[in-house]
Amino acid sequence: MTDSVRTAGVSGAGSLGLGAQILEWADQLAGHSDQADGLTVAYLTRAHQTAAAEIAGWMIEAGMQVEIDAVGNVVGRYPAQDPAAKVLLTGSHFDTVRNGGKYDGRLGILLPIAVVKRLHEHGIRLPYHVDVVAFAEEEGLRFHSSFLASSALIGAFDRAWLDAVDEDGVTMRDAMRAAGLAGTEDAIFALRRDPSRIAAFMEVHIEQGPVLLERGLPLGVVTSIAGSVRMTASVIGQASHAGTTPMNMRRDAAAAAAEMTLAIESRCAQAPSLVGTVGMFNVPNGATNVVPGRCDFSIDIRAGDDATRDEAVVDVLRVCEAIAQRRGVAMTFARTMAVPSAPCAAPLMDLLAASLERVGVPHFRLPSGAGHDAMMLARITDACMLFVRCGNGGISHNPLETVAADDVDLAGLVFLDFLRNFSA
Amino acid sequence: MTDSVRTAGVSGAGSLGLGAQILEWADQLAGHSDQADGLTVAYLTRAHQTAAAEIAGWMIEAGMQVEIDAVGNVVGRYPAQDPAAKVLLTGSHFDTVRNGGKYDGRLGILLPIAVVKRLHEHGIRLPYHVDVVAFAEEEGLRFHSSFLASSALIGAFDRAWLDAVDEDGVTMRDAMRAAGLAGTEDAIFALRRDPSRIAAFMEVHIEQGPVLLERGLPLGVVTSIAGSVRMTASVIGQASHAGTTPMNMRRDAAAAAAEMTLAIESRCAQAPSLVGTVGMFNVPNGATNVVPGRCDFSIDIRAGDDATRDEAVVDVLRVCEAIAQRRGVAMTFARTMAVPSAPCAAPLMDLLAASLERVGVPHFRLPSGAGHDAMMLARITDACMLFVRCGNGGISHNPLETVAADDVDLAGLVFLDFLRNFSA
Repeated sequence: MTDSVRTAGVSGAGSLGLGAQILEWADQLAGHSDQADGLTVAYLTRAHQTAAAEIAGWMIEAGMQVEIDAVGNVVGRYPAQDPAAKVLLTGSHFDTVRNGGKYDGRLGILLPIAVVKRLHEHGIRLPYHVDVVAFAEEEGLRFHSSFLASSALIGAFDRAWLDAVDEDGVTMRDAMRAAGLAGTEDAIFALRRDPSRIAAFMEVHIEQGPVLLERGLPLGVVTSIAGSVRMTASVIGQASHAGTTPMNMRRDAAAAAAEMTLAIESRCAQAPSLVGTVGMFNVPNGATNVVPGRCDFSIDIRAGDDATRDEAVVDVLRVCEAIAQRRGVAMTFARTMAVPSAPCAAPLMDLLAASLERVGVPHFRLPSGAGHDAMMLARITDACMLFVRCGNGGISHNPLETVAADDVDLAGLVFLDFLRNFSA
Repeated sequence: MTDSVRTAGVSGAGSLGLGAQILEWADQLAGHSDQADGLTVAYLTRAHQTAAAEIAGWMIEAGMQVEIDAVGNVVGRYPAQDPAAKVLLTGSHFDTVRNGGKYDGRLGILLPIAVVKRLHEHGIRLPYHVDVVAFAEEEGLRFHSSFLASSALIGAFDRAWLDAVDEDGVTMRDAMRAAGLAGTEDAIFALRRDPSRIAAFMEVHIEQGPVLLERGLPLGVVTSIAGSVRMTASVIGQASHAGTTPMNMRRDAAAAAAEMTLAIESRCAQAPSLVGTVGMFNVPNGATNVVPGRCDFSIDIRAGDDATRDEAVVDVLRVCEAIAQRRGVAMTFARTMAVPSAPCAAPLMDLLAASLERVGVPHFRLPSGAGHDAMMLARITDACMLFVRCGNGGISHNPLETVAADDVDLAGLVFLDFLRNFSA
């Protein structure tokens, strides 16, 4: 790293002017879609392939060596002078949810490409390889194979995914073949990166929530990626006549579930990174004049660390059982998902924090409640994440998702400063 | 009335032995059904007509003059010696809900027939006519025309019902014609009884709730028939990511609705005859990992008197608005039904209470939370109701609905004692 980078505008509150470029690319990338009137890019569709090709083109322009790997990831390497140098992995996903936003995932691909391009334009090489990975699959829209792409890089690809079928009955194996990928198990498991060759993983991502927006901050350092425990719950009471059953003789399944919902809400407000959600709540065949005999609901509890989350789960279950007992209703819980949280590496967080300070952005740390590719990479290497403020109230997974060019500029400055100070 | 009735077993804790007879009739009547494997008798179906014919036969055996009127009611008169005497109306409905119970409504037809039959067998005449009305329609199953039959008797038949269609597209008018009824508006409005000719209306009914069962009492005197206010409510919050939206930044529609549900439950536990029910509760398109942006629920509030009920409704709406405001969600309410309550006539309640005492049954009064034909008749005459204990936890509108023969025996004794002491 030389002073030529500084003169490119790295110092103080200067600007690399990358924001406009990145947003333009994001608009252009959003032109590839499975649907005419919104942005949907499912794994290995035609739009997915043309989007990958466009990303590959930008990587090449940025001076990177590019390949599309066996699962469809677009991997661009900005090589160090020493071929034996370690690798700094960065990137995010370019597939989307149905009718999603243009920045979710993609910002973490386009921003590194833009920064590398600037390095390349100034002839600056780094003492480590930078691999920008445009992950082909994270959302699980087509085959319910969330984190497929990052799983492949850590050797955790699930063989069963190859036989998964989309809603048209096409298997993933056939979709891979049609897309011209190797798609064999050997080729996929060969994607596993040797942890000893990786220096770290760094992911830039739009926050997808309102925290930075509410605090008036453009950027935030992620402390950990929450793992969620998901459960389905059913309360069984006694259906009875809404007119003839006195209040003190009822075994009302919905009232019990309502009390549990509030207990979950209240318990999960007791720690900063903890969240608890009852997203589904239904009285099957409910009628205005019938005391509910059954109520089904879902529970999603997440926290930045597993201990905080698991304590909350234990408390929630205990309180729900007590409510059920007091009300004379039965209840069943089924755990449908339990993913461990992924703490970010403290030295990397500190490095990012120092970059924020040098760029003149107030330093703020926050957990990520959503899952990200960094979660998978954190299993084999030190990982960190930089969040960029999400506009429009923090809405994401929605066409209204937005970021400000100025915030992206600042993120570019921070990323460049991070690269400059990172040692592999 | 003579001592010959007493010798038939009226005194003290004696028995008329009517319980077994009535339960046998109820079993037999349940043989007429629209469905093979459960009891459903919708208005003017084939099963409805054969059930009516069977009831008419029993009335004739009991010494009554019988007609099937313009809306299909089976009306049996046990005439007084004086043709100019007033009429004591009694009866209940013989239509059912889908897959209903054998005693709901029917007990209030069969018990009076059995008692009249006993009077007839002993050659006893009363100083007033007794009209036992088997109401053809109360449940509203086929045409959503609840209380059609008792409405006709008070001149409140809704002309629009004639054009109502069942799920096969058959109009009520055509169904009446097919059943051989007059079915003209003139004939129907001619059914209106002259209030000056009616002495009172008395209805025997299974309680359809657990109150008598819990108290270990066979019978109860109804104080009033609750009128219900029904509402639909929608809470509009902000759908957001269950992982990335901190608890204190949420506008969770389901959590708000849950809090409202508990507020309704709590407020409606504050007066003895008051009940409040949230029978429907749903998060449309809810997902485990999405904070609910919308929640729809129903509210049903009833009380023995309208003032108690309406105060509760006002309080509930005020509390719900406060919850909505505090949580930053919007809400809408729509009132879908508001029926005034019908207090029973105090002199008739006292008369019934005296009969209970003479028969040796502890005297207990309770409101009716369910609607009954007596509600309609109460608009033109003094009305009262006798509740018979409901077995199986008080379950009704269900094949498990049951009554004990001994309780029905006691109800027969009370009814006979009431007839003996009633003066038109």
